[in-house]
Amino acid sequence: MNTVDLIRRKRDGGTLTREEWGSLIDSFTDGKLPEYQMSAFLMACYFRGMSREEMLTFADRMLHSGVVLDLSDIPGYKVDKHSTGGVGDKVSLILAPIAAACGVAVPMISGRGLGHTGGTLDKLESIPGFRTSLTIAEYKEVLRSVGAVLIGQTTEIAPADKKMYALRDVTATVECIPLIAGSIMSKKLAEGSDALVLDIKTGRGAFMKEFGKALELGKALVEIGESAGKRTIGYVTDMSQPLGSHIGNWLEVVESVMCLRTTDGKYGLSTDVMDLTLLQAGTMVMLSGKARTVEEGMTLCKATLADGTAYTKFLDIVRAQGGSVASIERLDAHPPATHQIAVSAFRDGFVQSIDAMECGLVSILLGAGRTKMEDRIDPVSGIVLHRKRGMSVRKGDPLATAYTNDPSVIPEAASRLGKAFVVGPRPPQPVPLVKARIDSHGVKLIGSRSNVTGKRPASIRKRRAKPTKKRNQRSRK
Amino acid sequence: MNTVDLIRRKRDGGTLTREEWGSLIDSFTDGKLPEYQMSAFLMACYFRGMSREEMLTFADRMLHSGVVLDLSDIPGYKVDKHSTGGVGDKVSLILAPIAAACGVAVPMISGRGLGHTGGTLDKLESIPGFRTSLTIAEYKEVLRSVGAVLIGQTTEIAPADKKMYALRDVTATVECIPLIAGSIMSKKLAEGSDALVLDIKTGRGAFMKEFGKALELGKALVEIGESAGKRTIGYVTDMSQPLGSHIGNWLEVVESVMCLRTTDGKYGLSTDVMDLTLLQAGTMVMLSGKARTVEEGMTLCKATLADGTAYTKFLDIVRAQGGSVASIERLDAHPPATHQIAVSAFRDGFVQSIDAMECGLVSILLGAGRTKMEDRIDPVSGIVLHRKRGMSVRKGDPLATAYTNDPSVIPEAASRLGKAFVVGPRPPQPVPLVKARIDSHGVKLIGSRSNVTGKRPASIRKRRAKPTKKRNQRSRK
Repeated sequence: MNTVDLIRRKRDGGTLTREEWGSLIDSFTDGKLPEYQMSAFLMACYFRGMSREEMLTFADRMLHSGVVLDLSDIPGYKVDKHSTGGVGDKVSLILAPIAAACGVAVPMISGRGLGHTGGTLDKLESIPGFRTSLTIAEYKEVLRSVGAVLIGQTTEIAPADKKMYALRDVTATVECIPLIAGSIMSKKLAEGSDALVLDIKTGRGAFMKEFGKALELGKALVEIGESAGKRTIGYVTDMSQPLGSHIGNWLEVVESVMCLRTTDGKYGLSTDVMDLTLLQAGTMVMLSGKARTVEEGMTLCKATLADGTAYTKFLDIVRAQGGSVASIERLDAHPPATHQIAVSAFRDGFVQSIDAMECGLVSILLGAGRTKMEDRIDPVSGIVLHRKRGMSVRKGDPLATAYTNDPSVIPEAASRLGKAFVVGPRPPQPVPLVKARIDSHGVKLIGSRSNVTGKRPASIRKRRAKPTKKRNQRSRK
Repeated sequence: MNTVDLIRRKRDGGTLTREEWGSLIDSFTDGKLPEYQMSAFLMACYFRGMSREEMLTFADRMLHSGVVLDLSDIPGYKVDKHSTGGVGDKVSLILAPIAAACGVAVPMISGRGLGHTGGTLDKLESIPGFRTSLTIAEYKEVLRSVGAVLIGQTTEIAPADKKMYALRDVTATVECIPLIAGSIMSKKLAEGSDALVLDIKTGRGAFMKEFGKALELGKALVEIGESAGKRTIGYVTDMSQPLGSHIGNWLEVVESVMCLRTTDGKYGLSTDVMDLTLLQAGTMVMLSGKARTVEEGMTLCKATLADGTAYTKFLDIVRAQGGSVASIERLDAHPPATHQIAVSAFRDGFVQSIDAMECGLVSILLGAGRTKMEDRIDPVSGIVLHRKRGMSVRKGDPLATAYTNDPSVIPEAASRLGKAFVVGPRPPQPVPLVKARIDSHGVKLIGSRSNVTGKRPASIRKRRAKPTKKRNQRSRK
């Protein structure tokens, strides 16, 4: 293999064979292929993309650069859920115990905060003692005994992806759909689940800001999953305002625990979090065969909240992974951040929008995220929203509170957080939370939450997806 | 400066400021900027190009990454010539002594063989004892005493280019016009000449195979040269068949010496070499002020061949740079290659084409070039053509002879060399050798050699160059 020829071929819009992809990825992983060649190749991929065949090969070779876990000795149908990342997105923390309480085995390998978004691992680690670095034996044991386990990517899983992602991050080659899809799926397919639910975020606070791009990514993810023999269902969901009320690591644990403890279905500012959680957990239950439809799955999920079994399952997970159950049982025992900053409305009206991207960036400024990989996270810093989009406010009403242990950031954080809210005289147009559903049959565009679960058979098959997508993008302008 | 932001901006079609270019090039040169970031940036440049301003800045910063020679203490007007590289292109070897014999000072910094093309340095080094690595003091001394000097790029000159070119070569980012233009001109502007003549090759044996691309490169080169205050004239010339009859290092010295010794203007198979040499040397003489027009310059050049002063000047250069004058005076004393392979016509007819690219690649196979930087060159291997395009042949007539010291390559070389010739029943359409002339006034397209020197005032100004180029490209299809 002549690497320069492969780079040139991709640069000129050609395709690589299965063997060429394999040789490229293998020699990169074991250090024979220099990083400067891989980064040029990745930039060529950014401009030229990949054929369907290449994308499937890429994901497959990334997957097989490491260990593929075999969970066949663990009873139960295993289903995992993955989100492309958002602000305030604590769905995994709530969904894993709910699905497990319904009898679905949930083997979840999660990531850390990236850019302006939070990471499930960082959130879990804000629980005193919680260990996210388990051995594979421990991982399987927790899954077997508790029914759910949440860990980080181990060095054995998809090492090519780990190395390639680090390189993409410093060479502006992250934003490329087949690379993103292969990266995500190489990890998700390695963890040994039988099926996958995917949450593809779109809007200002997402990596894929445009709906069309998010849909394209979702289709790529579902295609890779299905062609690897896993049933895969994706939802494209709104990330224009933060999800729920809390942003930050311990703060999101707090919101998750409060949701899990709610038995009457009244979630207040966390309604959007729980709508998404129940939809995705219900889909997992349906995929596991424990319900015939997503709606039926959702009904089972709601029951685990009403009877407290989901919350108990959460405590079981925390206990099994070394976390302090007491800290969950007594949330107020956790020492709070030293500084609080209140941000208020400067006029009467309705919240038109809350810039999720800016909220994510401000939460990093407050200490809740990293700007460099080696930065330490402050678990208790972050933001709590008091109003969400569409809600009415009076001048002087609190919109949000920022928490930090670093007083030097207060002026900038307060100013930016205030500007992240737009208040106007009339209620804004509602924004649907779930915009599309993607499965092996194709794409279904969704205008409002009522038809998410498939009541209106408005299914759009793959061959019609493109023009429909375009019409939809236009209508959003 | 955040390098990732700069890569992303170029990737997304934006431009970098003068300061950003400077910082990028400087930190790359001193090793602070990792090669994997530079290679991703270069690939983004491949796809996005540069604005005119960026290209001028890029060339200027590359130039000033090293020493810019000051030749003002050497008397005479200094003019150099540069070719973008071809097969059998030995023009520099013949032109430098001719121009010097006319009183032009010729400070020439040349390169090695690259890809399928030969390099002036490798050719000169096939002369026993010839030194191409002179110190700057020696370089100036030879120029002062002889009037011409031919050396390789020193470490002091444009170190950024040396490092960047090595990286581009292994990351498939060579074929990018502003990068090529900046690379060439950063070296050419550093050598201290007052004016430049450029030979931009086009056709199958050139790096810029399409005429439109070659024209674009030529315009970029002239623009950079002129904006650096050097009078610059470029010619776009045909490289679809090899230039002259000999391909290979010592073989091209032999052809050059035979041309320099020819006093009657009858050059046989070397007619195209000498047409180009006289045009470009004549242009140098005109630029130096020793002739009012290129034609007048060409007349002076022809006189140096007729009276033997050009050949004497060549011997002076060889002597001054440590080469064996005896080996030039007695060309047959040089030990020939151990193996010769004759390739013959398989039918009667006319030579339709001789694939210059394939001849270049076969000559490398025979030992005349490198496939890796560390390969040793066999000075005596190569190809001698016995027929050129348009000539009639009878079945069994010799078309070419291949020379090598490596018998293992003979079967492949013979087969490929035979296939490089296309013989057909009728004489082919003539291909003009010089296709365009570019100077500060713009582009002049040239259909035949007769109007190269400016007899027909068909000058096309810059603002009209683009549509004209397009029409021309179309008409060539």
